Amino acid sequence: MKIVIVGATGTIGKHVVSSLEKDHEIISVGSKSGDIRADIGSPESIENLFKQVGHFDALVNVSGDAYFGPLKTMTDKDFRRGVDSKLMGQINLVLIGQHYINSKGSFTLTSGVLTQDPVLSGANPSAANGAIESFVRAAAIELENGVRINAVSPTVVEDSPEYFSYFPGHIPVSMKQVVNGYQKSVMGAGTGQVINVY
Amino acid sequence: MKIVIVGATGTIGKHVVSSLEKDHEIISVGSKSGDIRADIGSPESIENLFKQVGHFDALVNVSGDAYFGPLKTMTDKDFRRGVDSKLMGQINLVLIGQHYINSKGSFTLTSGVLTQDPVLSGANPSAANGAIESFVRAAAIELENGVRINAVSPTVVEDSPEYFSYFPGHIPVSMKQVVNGYQKSVMGAGTGQVINVY
Repeated sequence: MKIVIVGATGTIGKHVVSSLEKDHEIISVGSKSGDIRADIGSPESIENLFKQVGHFDALVNVSGDAYFGPLKTMTDKDFRRGVDSKLMGQINLVLIGQHYINSKGSFTLTSGVLTQDPVLSGANPSAANGAIESFVRAAAIELENGVRINAVSPTVVEDSPEYFSYFPGHIPVSMKQVVNGYQKSVMGAGTGQVINVY
Repeated sequence: MKIVIVGATGTIGKHVVSSLEKDHEIISVGSKSGDIRADIGSPESIENLFKQVGHFDALVNVSGDAYFGPLKTMTDKDFRRGVDSKLMGQINLVLIGQHYINSKGSFTLTSGVLTQDPVLSGANPSAANGAIESFVRAAAIELENGVRINAVSPTVVEDSPEYFSYFPGHIPVSMKQVVNGYQKSVMGAGTGQVINVY
């Protein structure tokens, strides 16, 4: 398969690439590195990305920014950070990518445990994740030609101890568990699924 | 209580007003009618709304626009309709309103069955609803002074037969059931809850 991985050099992305590159053609995409540079916060940049990629079989997005900070001082501008990137960035990868994806292809987006289980200062990623999970269920019933869509929803990962203190009591999952979630979406047959890794 | 109802003259809003106006002071808000005019798509308009309202005990939002249309032709611009109104409009009512709400006050937002159970052409409201439900869970753990927040999530209502064909197989609920959902949020003690009316 020809697989586009957006966020390919990130903490999770590089492991997703490692797990797939032996058997598949990988197009790595990043904001500052990779085979192709793209900013998912810009629909024009996404359109330009797919024009360079051409047809493809699977897209995995493991990128997306959001705002962490206290609700008490949060503004519309703060909240738009996650709305423009983790939310609309991922959705635009599908809205635009649907015109380039091959039959029986798949989209795999990334949400997270904060959809269901919030932490302090996390209202913005919670909302973005909730939107992505509902979007995946909705898009799955409309995508044509056997194209599938799922989201992987991890909790904090063992490889990122810098985040542990923000997730009190959460049991960190291994990178292998997270990578398996992406493999399940790309190589499995499910659609409209949220693959919880926690 | 002094209760602000945004979308007070809408299909659901007018019934919420009727159920609360005997025992409470109601400030009705609408884009084209009501005691105060406001456009929830504009943070400036929301700020101006609360400056006129002053302190209050409860806010109920039963307004919010979204885009209905096929995924196949949907664009970033189409999707922003629900993002700017049903999603950010409701969230900005809380981000800004938290600075005006009294101790032990409550926010009640509106999501809908499409969060969990999508219909064709409904990807935009699905995503907006999913964001609102996760936001409500996240905001509930940060709001101070006993302020609560919930979302009411109705399916199609008996009073709106024009929508029935978009929701095949859904069993319409009565307006009384929907109004009771809002009463549960405003007069109850729960917070971070999604009150499903379906």
